[in-house]
Amino acid sequence: MSPVTSAVQLSEEKLARAALTYLAEPGDPALGALLGICGPGEVLAAIKADMLPGIGPGCGDSPASRAALERALGRWRVRLAGLPGDADIAAVCRDGIRLICPGDPEWPDGLDQLGLARPYALWLRGNADLRFACLRSVSMVGSRAATGYGAHVAGEIAADLGERGWAVVSGGAYGIDAAAHRGALAAEGITIAVLACGVDHPYPAGHAQLFAAIAAQGLVISQLPPGRPPARMRFLVRNRAIAALTCGTVIVEAGARSGALNTARHAANLGKPLMAVPGPVTSAQSAGCHQIIREWGATCVTGAADIIEMISPISVPDALAPGGAREPASSPGSAPPGPDSAPSRDDLDADSARVLDALPARGRAGTSTIAIDAGVDLDTVLRCLGLLAGYGFIERCDGGWRLRKH
Amino acid sequence: MSPVTSAVQLSEEKLARAALTYLAEPGDPALGALLGICGPGEVLAAIKADMLPGIGPGCGDSPASRAALERALGRWRVRLAGLPGDADIAAVCRDGIRLICPGDPEWPDGLDQLGLARPYALWLRGNADLRFACLRSVSMVGSRAATGYGAHVAGEIAADLGERGWAVVSGGAYGIDAAAHRGALAAEGITIAVLACGVDHPYPAGHAQLFAAIAAQGLVISQLPPGRPPARMRFLVRNRAIAALTCGTVIVEAGARSGALNTARHAANLGKPLMAVPGPVTSAQSAGCHQIIREWGATCVTGAADIIEMISPISVPDALAPGGAREPASSPGSAPPGPDSAPSRDDLDADSARVLDALPARGRAGTSTIAIDAGVDLDTVLRCLGLLAGYGFIERCDGGWRLRKH
Repeated sequence: MSPVTSAVQLSEEKLARAALTYLAEPGDPALGALLGICGPGEVLAAIKADMLPGIGPGCGDSPASRAALERALGRWRVRLAGLPGDADIAAVCRDGIRLICPGDPEWPDGLDQLGLARPYALWLRGNADLRFACLRSVSMVGSRAATGYGAHVAGEIAADLGERGWAVVSGGAYGIDAAAHRGALAAEGITIAVLACGVDHPYPAGHAQLFAAIAAQGLVISQLPPGRPPARMRFLVRNRAIAALTCGTVIVEAGARSGALNTARHAANLGKPLMAVPGPVTSAQSAGCHQIIREWGATCVTGAADIIEMISPISVPDALAPGGAREPASSPGSAPPGPDSAPSRDDLDADSARVLDALPARGRAGTSTIAIDAGVDLDTVLRCLGLLAGYGFIERCDGGWRLRKH
Repeated sequence: MSPVTSAVQLSEEKLARAALTYLAEPGDPALGALLGICGPGEVLAAIKADMLPGIGPGCGDSPASRAALERALGRWRVRLAGLPGDADIAAVCRDGIRLICPGDPEWPDGLDQLGLARPYALWLRGNADLRFACLRSVSMVGSRAATGYGAHVAGEIAADLGERGWAVVSGGAYGIDAAAHRGALAAEGITIAVLACGVDHPYPAGHAQLFAAIAAQGLVISQLPPGRPPARMRFLVRNRAIAALTCGTVIVEAGARSGALNTARHAANLGKPLMAVPGPVTSAQSAGCHQIIREWGATCVTGAADIIEMISPISVPDALAPGGAREPASSPGSAPPGPDSAPSRDDLDADSARVLDALPARGRAGTSTIAIDAGVDLDTVLRCLGLLAGYGFIERCDGGWRLRKH
């Protein structure tokens, strides 16, 4: 079996998107606007040539917006000197780091809700399937200066969510974030740390081991390329991504001016369920939670059951849980199912069914081995593997893919 | 100066209502229905004669409801033997206990919202004016098995409400109720204990001193006549009265099946603001609070400021607070003002203005002395004194009435 990464050939478009994460800050509205009308390769070429692409109406068609785009071009060109070559980027991707882009089978729907603020690409450490994990996910964030109460409650609820098959997404910070990740890890659940720095850059440094554990069991992800340090604006953009990725956001302890309230605001703006765990009114660390319950209409939740009830109004999503019931989906197709449908083998297209049959009953197989056994080409096997992972039939592992245990 | 009580001549109607509190359980729907169509004297005579009064359509006009009323008559007649005579009732009213009835100046509007479940009369211990106190009042109830956290928070919030001129109404029970009363007392605020037994019957017995302190600074009130012990149904009827009397209800700690949730339900049914103080989700004593925040839409409140904001959406009611601004009310009249208008001397009718002028600048005066000084008859002085107390110009005290300090 060949290691999965040896089969990874980054397309031109993916290499261009990877390069753009090096050149532009995440959430740069000028780049979002350009990517709304041009392909990433075209944008990258324009930056290198220091010449805006020929663009139609709607973007850069007024002198003011054209001037803004030209200023952005200058901003991005500053970083051209430090841009790694295609070979270096490919090397990064052989080093336990993955790159996923809009349109990839693993790309989570939630990020597409961000419109022009959609990430250019995501860098991932870990084998879990991001799209599948996000189908049943909760972001749980809160104060860095957590109290014993808050850390305890965050850990308990995250563990309970993990046991029930829900992924816990947080920011990897000290305090509530760490307690949430650790709770999910302890329950052997999927947990995802969304960083405001490169996925190989442990921030805070004291969490290097925690991030390694998260990558081993779940995912460490970032909009920033490997090696990039955190910065204030990057945290704010990261908070929006956390809210967008998940089915709902829970705040566990937040002071009246906590950064967690920024994530809460994004969840509310995105129309996602916003929840908060109450605490003693004598605790300043719960003041933000009580405030958003009273003033923003956040739901008062006291445990995993309350949270799951909020984010899955119909009980059907349990069918997607490991070991959950599987009934034929009503509308077979190639798109991964939403949380209100449960896929079965009958829903698979012929290629995907062949690829699924090519996976060994035990152990794992590399991507090219699977392609050969299934009798499909590499592009097809990649598409089918992503789909099967999104459906929850298979999962990525070191050295390839394996059937998911149910 | 003669003591105020010597001047109290109970009218026929009041004596009849007093007698009815001895004969029927509070909240008896049959008695409520009868009082909706007959005078209390007529109802009492009917009970004594064992013959239903001649009643028109709408009550007892079907054989079934007539049979129910006849059964009720039998129920009430059982207690005729123990009914105190008019002289005994008058004697009770000389013993530091007052009786107020619907239509009295001191009768609180809130109880009229109860319709047929309106109390037949109320027994009071204490000099505070019930109607005036209820104009700016909050019921604060909760678990008997309060935690240290709950008792602390109830006491702090009640003290803060008391300092801001809001009366704290509760049930006199152990735990949260007692902490709320004590907090208000400590802040020299008005507090009202609504009992499920006679106002001379300390229940729980360990609260005899507390009730004495409440009567000295506020009011101990009950729908039950003096001497009557508590009973399960009486607590439920009492809970409804607590909710009806006040501008809003706050639950501070309640287990998932706490009796405090019964009061909360009444507040919600009456359309009154319902609030709850959150606590640690690890505490069973806060589970009921979190439940009503999540499921009943109770507002999450963390202190007196939140509570006052909820029950006085416009800030005008502060004008009614001791020391608050006094501006001419827009619609002068004899009815005590709602919480959104502040009375001035200019709003008083001629008799009330004369009665107010008859009160000494310092010290107190008895009712008959005031009547003589003002040159009005006893009925008029009683009406005017009630109105002036309701407006907050004067207050009852041992031995009569005095000007209210501002």
